[in-house]
Amino acid sequence: MSHQLSVLPSRPEWAVEALRSVDVDPVPPDENTEGLIWLGFHDPEGLIAAVRRLPALRWVQLPSAGVDDFVDAGALDPRIVWTSAKGAYAEPVAEHALTLLLAGLRQIPGRARATDWGVPAGTSLYGRRVLIVGAGGVALELVRLLRPFRSEITIVRRQAAEVADVHRTITSSALADVLPTMDAVVLAAAMTSGTTSLIDASALASMPPHSVLVNVARGGLVDLEAVAALPRGTGPASVLLDVTAPEPLPAGHPLWTDERVLITPHTADTWDMIRPLLARRVAENAARFRRGLALIGEIDLDHGY
Amino acid sequence: MSHQLSVLPSRPEWAVEALRSVDVDPVPPDENTEGLIWLGFHDPEGLIAAVRRLPALRWVQLPSAGVDDFVDAGALDPRIVWTSAKGAYAEPVAEHALTLLLAGLRQIPGRARATDWGVPAGTSLYGRRVLIVGAGGVALELVRLLRPFRSEITIVRRQAAEVADVHRTITSSALADVLPTMDAVVLAAAMTSGTTSLIDASALASMPPHSVLVNVARGGLVDLEAVAALPRGTGPASVLLDVTAPEPLPAGHPLWTDERVLITPHTADTWDMIRPLLARRVAENAARFRRGLALIGEIDLDHGY
Repeated sequence: MSHQLSVLPSRPEWAVEALRSVDVDPVPPDENTEGLIWLGFHDPEGLIAAVRRLPALRWVQLPSAGVDDFVDAGALDPRIVWTSAKGAYAEPVAEHALTLLLAGLRQIPGRARATDWGVPAGTSLYGRRVLIVGAGGVALELVRLLRPFRSEITIVRRQAAEVADVHRTITSSALADVLPTMDAVVLAAAMTSGTTSLIDASALASMPPHSVLVNVARGGLVDLEAVAALPRGTGPASVLLDVTAPEPLPAGHPLWTDERVLITPHTADTWDMIRPLLARRVAENAARFRRGLALIGEIDLDHGY
Repeated sequence: MSHQLSVLPSRPEWAVEALRSVDVDPVPPDENTEGLIWLGFHDPEGLIAAVRRLPALRWVQLPSAGVDDFVDAGALDPRIVWTSAKGAYAEPVAEHALTLLLAGLRQIPGRARATDWGVPAGTSLYGRRVLIVGAGGVALELVRLLRPFRSEITIVRRQAAEVADVHRTITSSALADVLPTMDAVVLAAAMTSGTTSLIDASALASMPPHSVLVNVARGGLVDLEAVAALPRGTGPASVLLDVTAPEPLPAGHPLWTDERVLITPHTADTWDMIRPLLARRVAENAARFRRGLALIGEIDLDHGY
């Protein structure tokens, strides 16, 4: 096999350099192209059209960690091996999750809006109960960042398999039981049919009044209308979101002026942060593809991530 | 010796419980009192008056980690052994330092003030150069919290002695040389004659435009008028202060509305956070005092901390 590899929809210099660092020379796509590095983040239709023109295609590398938009568009032809960037951006995303978690506990958003001294307040993270929804790269990196704080970590995942170095691992069906006991909840799961509006009105209402909710995964995991409608004194003290549905959240949405809410505009992994990480993943997988080795981040088409 | 021990200016139940947990029964102060647990945080004059009435006094435990206000008031009679709570509150204070550091790098204050989506921005902490001024409990705990981020840590301290687990240790005289190379600067040093206005106009101006400055030590370490007067585009991107001079910072001060600045009202270690930590230190030192052992947190009267 030729292992001929192309980069689309454009062929930026950083990607060409990454590939050449493992002695792969990308060429313009043609009927012999077997591998495709697809760098269009929000263009599943462009991807579908490109794949149709490449009859020899066996592998496509996608640029994002979550691939729900490609799945929803029906872009993932099952005759092809698909890999995502899952795990590659775990460090900056877990860091952002910790940032939002600490900012919530330490009441930083309220202080940023204050114009006088106010009353000392806040909660320390040491020894607190933290629930992490998801057991992928971001969740595991967050476990590592939380270790010095002696957090009591519960992981919620689809499968029952235990995650190392945490207090306990439970499945989604037990989520409602544990929510009322948590000091903090961090959403780091893929967006699938099973996680849509995972945090709905009743989940929110069951969270303790001092707790914080952080979402660095996909906006659809949290029912934002339920957040906006939550009566004062009900549910978590703070809701800190790096992702919303829709995105961007329109100006004028009630959450922009809700003092319980902080929104960062999907900045957990900015392009500047992830470009070197994506370059490394592209190079690694291109080298593996050429040598016929198992690829990193293969998407399970049944589960959609 | 009697080792008779008293608690002043009041005798709260938590302190009595802490002492009884090590079989020490505090009694009202009289001419036989040899040890004093002083719980007045901001009352050096009250302390001076109390000490005058206790002729047998050999040891005083102070409640705070920094003791500059007691030193400035001349309260620390050199014939007595003085211990502070230094090191006891390291965990919550280092946590707050990390919170402010991440909030600055990730531009959380600006997002808290925003009412629409804006442009993704921010800096990741992984692998960054962090300067920590101080080598006490807070600094060492912060080193531990930063470890997962692979930070390149420089410690600035009075003595030349190397600190473990950091990239390098330098003395204060080299501060000006390294400031222009730092992504973040965290002040965690005692307030002494040598650290007053350590960060002045010229130090601020030498910091890189993407950098952040965090102060969790004492307000006087940073010249706040110099921060307010710093021209746009000069000095650090963000200045995040848990302490100010004066404290509270008066309403109407220009820093309250400076979008480069975040102020938390000395909440790194709230009373709720430190009470159990102070109780543990009081119990430990009372037990040591009774057995004639070396006390924890003895103040060096020459250096003032």
